[in-house]
Amino acid sequence: MKIFFDIDDTLFPSSEFSALARKNALNAMIGIGLDFEYQKLNDLLLSLIKEKGSNYPKHFNDLCTALDVDEPAKFVAAAVAAYHHTKSSIAPYPEIPRTLLRLKDDGHQIYVATNGASVKQWDKLIRLGLALYFDKVFISEELGASKSPEFYSKILKSLGCEASECVMIGDREDADIVPAKEAGMKTVRILKGKHSSIPSTADFTIEELGNLYQIVQRL
Amino acid sequence: MKIFFDIDDTLFPSSEFSALARKNALNAMIGIGLDFEYQKLNDLLLSLIKEKGSNYPKHFNDLCTALDVDEPAKFVAAAVAAYHHTKSSIAPYPEIPRTLLRLKDDGHQIYVATNGASVKQWDKLIRLGLALYFDKVFISEELGASKSPEFYSKILKSLGCEASECVMIGDREDADIVPAKEAGMKTVRILKGKHSSIPSTADFTIEELGNLYQIVQRL
Repeated sequence: MKIFFDIDDTLFPSSEFSALARKNALNAMIGIGLDFEYQKLNDLLLSLIKEKGSNYPKHFNDLCTALDVDEPAKFVAAAVAAYHHTKSSIAPYPEIPRTLLRLKDDGHQIYVATNGASVKQWDKLIRLGLALYFDKVFISEELGASKSPEFYSKILKSLGCEASECVMIGDREDADIVPAKEAGMKTVRILKGKHSSIPSTADFTIEELGNLYQIVQRL
Repeated sequence: MKIFFDIDDTLFPSSEFSALARKNALNAMIGIGLDFEYQKLNDLLLSLIKEKGSNYPKHFNDLCTALDVDEPAKFVAAAVAAYHHTKSSIAPYPEIPRTLLRLKDDGHQIYVATNGASVKQWDKLIRLGLALYFDKVFISEELGASKSPEFYSKILKSLGCEASECVMIGDREDADIVPAKEAGMKTVRILKGKHSSIPSTADFTIEELGNLYQIVQRL
């Protein structure tokens, strides 16, 4: 079987690390002398992220501009250093490495199928220590399509395989489950991260990654 | 007295860390499967850095392009992660923190005067653990002039002080010593880093940072 894994909130607790990185960044700004309440800074940062998107690289610059801060470079540098320090300490869900190795041992091919910028997604795989586990990595930037029936069809075509021998595993109903099903693949929804409360239409839905290996065996 | 410090190769061994970061980045690319000799990669990288300048952010992308590498994102991500990991572990020359504190205790004002991008130079001060030591930080990007007599005159004007009560300390004859002298400041040249073999015209020239405190007392 060919098994496709999403990265964020599937291989590692992405939402938790992002929240922690933001928290550490704001505390670093306060630590170096930014005289505002944490809660006010956090509310403003979240609204900027919502407005500009999470891949926008200047959130902390905009935060300083919005607050009319003197010497913004100092605070931006403190925030970015703390943010990157946290982001560089990501680790997989503890069950993931063992599960991947058991699936490979059983003769399955394992892949990554993810939305995002190529270098940024590879950076996560490298820091997670998982870069060399996968037979191939498919990233939307290189495929020229975000997760959609077209995204999954392109992958199937590139591997020259049937949808029925493929399973997509991910946390997002809209990106990982619905379009993969439409492309004919089997699906496993992982209830992790900030989208976990959205109802699942996947073939299997799991809360504990410890169950993933058994689920895949039943497919 | 007002004492101005350059950052790179004055407060910390910048040249050594840069060389180590490049080495670790290339070894990370090889480690993840880039099938080229280290020496060939290093020669090519050095020529790209020479051509594009050290602040250009895409050296590793260009390296992959020049080598016609398949799946460049993987190798770029590995290189950048290793490079940043090394760069984030910078530490001051061991004599620096103690020297700065003694100068402050003696009633001197201490400043940074550096060429570079504001956020990037602040990032170094923060990672060095020195950001809060200085009375003020002057960076060329904010001043609107690179190190030149004009750069130093702008600083003197902004502080409202005489050149004769100021001393500039740095490793570079062309940027730290000659133009600061021309602006009327006293100068101390530190023979560290890749420019250390260039002859010195500074008022004082030192090889060991342990001597810096005594030198400043004599000025």
